[in-house]
Amino acid sequence: MDHSDWVRAALQPLMASHGFLLTPREEIERRIAGLRKRMEEQGVEALLVVQKMDGFYLSGTSQDALLYLPLQGDPLLLVKRELERARTETPLQKVTALRSLRRLPDLIQEQAGRLPEILGVEMDVLPAKDYFRLASLFPKARLADTSEMIRRLRAVKTPFEIALMRKAGDIGRTVYHYAGEILKEGMTEIEFGGLLEAAAKAHGHEGLLRVRSYNYEAYTWHVLSGVAGGIVSQSDSPMGGLGLSPAFPVGASLKVMRAHEPILVDFGICYHGYQADETRMFSIGKMPGKFVDAFNACKVIHDAVLAEARPGADCEQIFMNTLRLADKLGYRDSYLGPPGLQTRFIGHGIGLELNEFPFLAQGQAYPLEEGMTFAVEPKIVFPGEGSVGLENTVVVTRNGCDILTPLEQKIFETR
Amino acid sequence: MDHSDWVRAALQPLMASHGFLLTPREEIERRIAGLRKRMEEQGVEALLVVQKMDGFYLSGTSQDALLYLPLQGDPLLLVKRELERARTETPLQKVTALRSLRRLPDLIQEQAGRLPEILGVEMDVLPAKDYFRLASLFPKARLADTSEMIRRLRAVKTPFEIALMRKAGDIGRTVYHYAGEILKEGMTEIEFGGLLEAAAKAHGHEGLLRVRSYNYEAYTWHVLSGVAGGIVSQSDSPMGGLGLSPAFPVGASLKVMRAHEPILVDFGICYHGYQADETRMFSIGKMPGKFVDAFNACKVIHDAVLAEARPGADCEQIFMNTLRLADKLGYRDSYLGPPGLQTRFIGHGIGLELNEFPFLAQGQAYPLEEGMTFAVEPKIVFPGEGSVGLENTVVVTRNGCDILTPLEQKIFETR
Repeated sequence: MDHSDWVRAALQPLMASHGFLLTPREEIERRIAGLRKRMEEQGVEALLVVQKMDGFYLSGTSQDALLYLPLQGDPLLLVKRELERARTETPLQKVTALRSLRRLPDLIQEQAGRLPEILGVEMDVLPAKDYFRLASLFPKARLADTSEMIRRLRAVKTPFEIALMRKAGDIGRTVYHYAGEILKEGMTEIEFGGLLEAAAKAHGHEGLLRVRSYNYEAYTWHVLSGVAGGIVSQSDSPMGGLGLSPAFPVGASLKVMRAHEPILVDFGICYHGYQADETRMFSIGKMPGKFVDAFNACKVIHDAVLAEARPGADCEQIFMNTLRLADKLGYRDSYLGPPGLQTRFIGHGIGLELNEFPFLAQGQAYPLEEGMTFAVEPKIVFPGEGSVGLENTVVVTRNGCDILTPLEQKIFETR
Repeated sequence: MDHSDWVRAALQPLMASHGFLLTPREEIERRIAGLRKRMEEQGVEALLVVQKMDGFYLSGTSQDALLYLPLQGDPLLLVKRELERARTETPLQKVTALRSLRRLPDLIQEQAGRLPEILGVEMDVLPAKDYFRLASLFPKARLADTSEMIRRLRAVKTPFEIALMRKAGDIGRTVYHYAGEILKEGMTEIEFGGLLEAAAKAHGHEGLLRVRSYNYEAYTWHVLSGVAGGIVSQSDSPMGGLGLSPAFPVGASLKVMRAHEPILVDFGICYHGYQADETRMFSIGKMPGKFVDAFNACKVIHDAVLAEARPGADCEQIFMNTLRLADKLGYRDSYLGPPGLQTRFIGHGIGLELNEFPFLAQGQAYPLEEGMTFAVEPKIVFPGEGSVGLENTVVVTRNGCDILTPLEQKIFETR
């Protein structure tokens, strides 16, 4: 059977019967209109969207493609692989094959009628080698970095996106309840983390937590127990854990979990591309008072952030206020890491990627807006002993914020 | 407790008791000597190694760091996070903190005595924005793209690396045997894939399959059954499967697996950073003859590749020979994908990343060398019906090649 014929006849019903939600046309039109407004303000006449999640956001498909988006006229989706599947997924009208990058200027000339003089690309992720290749293909165009323009647009979620994040949060609740059922003394961190991941996948979790960076990696199996929780590692996180080797020195390890250790489970769920990130503490038997107290301090800080979060609240200020609060609560030297290694953020935007705008962090002086989503994650670290934390993903509403991760905010003690 | 004090006192024994192998000093020295030989030949006086796996290969640590490697004098490891852990993992002598990128030229001047006139960076992964930042920090230096130099060096593995890949292959055998035990009619692809992954992790599998690309993603849960196996998707692979959503349109899906369907399980294991990639066919009950025949054809092609693979054999030629063989076997229109969508490779180098040199592919006319490792993966695709394949990871030896994935090369039929 011809693959294209098969896709045209059978793929859409197959996707529908296996839980696929397609991005509606109005949703894509709304996003493109929002981006064009920014392009106009910044004098960029066309974008070549090169990054997978930017392309997915604007087209509804994550097939291997480039999206050419002029200020006027139809957007043009140029598909490397697989053309018919992209056509099935995207509501965009102009979808064509891109067999060789060399053909790109001709295709744009043909379809859009002219070549741009200013062409925006996402220079925060496009490798230098590819950048120079594009520059040689468009010798008369000036390439501009338009990644922040797209990222700022993507920071404010639509109801369609928020619903997907809520669903991710619901899967998270199921997974954490399951965690409470299976946690047993003698399991290794990685065994436990692997089983949680398998449970999440069975409910539709997509496994990869996408991050916008060429070196920074995220992953789901972030289970840190006792002494391992007190280890700072390469990630921009209050603690990284032991990990499995020098090649992967973060997250769960082969360490056996023991009774009365603080066990931190920081787990991101990805549903239809959208992530919800949360952290809870577990303990086999009673958790020692020192860690319970620190958890309660995290809860106070968490609640204070949510009380401040509303449209107009300044992201840097929210972070700075937590420093004062942690100090007052007695955790100046352990809040967000040990002295000299403390991270400088209390929250990070989240959506299709784990490091989106807004950042509730030092140096990020801009206001929250309605529809922004972020994870808030106060954590306290004791080197040599362990760490505790609490994390939820929230959306900024008209008057405050709403939690998208509905799991109970408590320590999960198992027998 | 001070984190640095704790790391110096306790991290090394903790790593040792949890299975961590450190890269020996002689190993790192050998790699650096190999790279300097290439630098000298190509007239590059210094490298700034920016990519995580290149850095790990040359330093033994994957903490967040840059490695400055001059042609003469000590290499300088500049650590962003976490300094003491990097010191514990690397045998390099000069290890210092990099608190701000702005400090980089001064640190190099101080430690190396001079600034380079030609500075090599990996332009295939370094984002354009970071490239221009580096260019402004080193205004008198010419930046050169040295990624291929490093990648060619990394293509030839040492005995230390091959031993880690063999261990990954051993874990794979355990996981596939477990797969045969748990596969049952009515399971979804993703449920099955998730359980395999959990089993692999419990044995030390590191979960992320690293790929050198800003858009291309690899993952472990590549379970494709029946009709889903006949779907081509965005990846450069003969088939991609249905996946879980338009945001992740590859790999296992919520499709329920039924008796007598071909079930393709393509699973990569990562141990201490090193990957072993393999594919086997499963079936609940007897697999229909059409797919058994196609599997047998894959086995013939697989064996032909291994019979040809030896030092000096041409990578492109090996691939082209498989086209003729597939044609002769009657699979011209289904070998490596359906017509118009057929991929143009039969093998890919593998190690710390899934897309290393050598590529046994069209346009890759260069010889195999002793110590190169690659995955060979003949696959046959029937749109609307399913696909079959066989894959192993091998190392080129003095006279031929050795399989690093010792699992039986058969169809796993379960009841």
